[in-house]
Amino acid sequence: MNKTQLPIGIFDSGLGGLTVLKALQRALPKESFIYVGDTAHVPYGNKSLEAIIIYSKRIAKFLINQKVKLIIIACNTSSALALKALKQTFDLPILDVITPVQKIISLKSTPIKIGVIGTHNTIASGAYRKAIKPKNKKIQIFEQACPLFVPIIEEGLQNDSIASLAVKKYLTPLINKNIQLLILGCTHYPLIKETIQRNIPKKIQIVDSANSMAEYLTNYLNKTRLLSHIKRKKDRIIITDHSDNFHNFTNKILDRNDINIEILKLT
Amino acid sequence: MNKTQLPIGIFDSGLGGLTVLKALQRALPKESFIYVGDTAHVPYGNKSLEAIIIYSKRIAKFLINQKVKLIIIACNTSSALALKALKQTFDLPILDVITPVQKIISLKSTPIKIGVIGTHNTIASGAYRKAIKPKNKKIQIFEQACPLFVPIIEEGLQNDSIASLAVKKYLTPLINKNIQLLILGCTHYPLIKETIQRNIPKKIQIVDSANSMAEYLTNYLNKTRLLSHIKRKKDRIIITDHSDNFHNFTNKILDRNDINIEILKLT
Repeated sequence: MNKTQLPIGIFDSGLGGLTVLKALQRALPKESFIYVGDTAHVPYGNKSLEAIIIYSKRIAKFLINQKVKLIIIACNTSSALALKALKQTFDLPILDVITPVQKIISLKSTPIKIGVIGTHNTIASGAYRKAIKPKNKKIQIFEQACPLFVPIIEEGLQNDSIASLAVKKYLTPLINKNIQLLILGCTHYPLIKETIQRNIPKKIQIVDSANSMAEYLTNYLNKTRLLSHIKRKKDRIIITDHSDNFHNFTNKILDRNDINIEILKLT
Repeated sequence: MNKTQLPIGIFDSGLGGLTVLKALQRALPKESFIYVGDTAHVPYGNKSLEAIIIYSKRIAKFLINQKVKLIIIACNTSSALALKALKQTFDLPILDVITPVQKIISLKSTPIKIGVIGTHNTIASGAYRKAIKPKNKKIQIFEQACPLFVPIIEEGLQNDSIASLAVKKYLTPLINKNIQLLILGCTHYPLIKETIQRNIPKKIQIVDSANSMAEYLTNYLNKTRLLSHIKRKKDRIIITDHSDNFHNFTNKILDRNDINIEILKLT
């Protein structure tokens, strides 16, 4: 089989990366995907650096055994903390969710005040600041951890008044800094995007990991001649621990109810 | 060394069980404790039965190697799902946090409508209903999962307006059932007790795991002649993965700032 026909591996700490998978399925309907959600260890946002690297390597190894042509880290925390270790360990191309956002920002000449929101770990890592600042020293970056967004989204409360209150609480400091652009630095956040939009000034532009990755990957596959021209396999969705919630969540995000979820303990 | 002088092992999925430890330290100042918080796997509330049993056994084995005289499962999810497996596997006395609450309820003749709140897993297990109902068939039990309470508490937002909104959201259905007593079926919840009290009718009595366990354990140690008469060792606090938050949280709950936290990977 031609290398272009191999599936693309994609992983996340749990459910959030499905927003990236969905954007990729839409943008690249001829590609096949194997998604791994590490529900045994979700959330990564409050785990140690060492633990996140071990979990990420384990999944990457599994995906490589499945013969994927490249791996996408659809998790901001793992992108921020484990990318380097994965690239040092494995040979195939590994893409993170932070670089695509940085590329999009570098194409925009206007914004000089940018807000970044994410989990504790992603914000503490300063990953977006480190990716964006060196390319444009004039940009001012304001960061804010929003740790309640993930549980709110996982409980399906993203349109509830609790979500609005949490958005106001976390985003008011950024709005007060007059940010012109807001980066949703967590793959769960596209799901709370509408509530965010309703509660911040309209002029603030929102950039999320899912759409940025879809654009970036399309260019990347074209450039590296890895683009598939025919869909060969059904996409697979794998989780590392059983969770009732995952089923509902997967169906809701991917907007289908015929999805087969495999459970696979990775050790 | 006399068996009574051995420490008491106590474990939880993470931080919440420290509320139980604190109540035990107060009630039994001559006992020594070894606390294990399984921060590598927190939260248990959304993990599978199988995973929870594996994690619980691993910690119990570690505590037994530390020569404890008994083990307290200071986690409602593990008490609900793993108690039986632990008792079948290990020889020493193992106490869960659900039985003490059941004992307290059985001493009260008045309440016939009881509300129980906890994580998804604890509520889905029906553990409190199963413990209370057979002893008093007249009692009506109304259960409600409150999955946002733990992240709200772990973020230190238990006195924020977000906490009040969450309390109203989750507890209104129980208040509408005219409950007379509310069981806080999660060891984190004593920390959000004041916000709960402010938002429910004063006549509803609140029972929590921490105080119930302190009363129960005191009786148990007396009855089994395992009571220690002199404190021999400094209490130990062990976590299974590093987390900055754990330090702040531990100091806050235990109301001290001199606590040494050991990090120990259990495999």
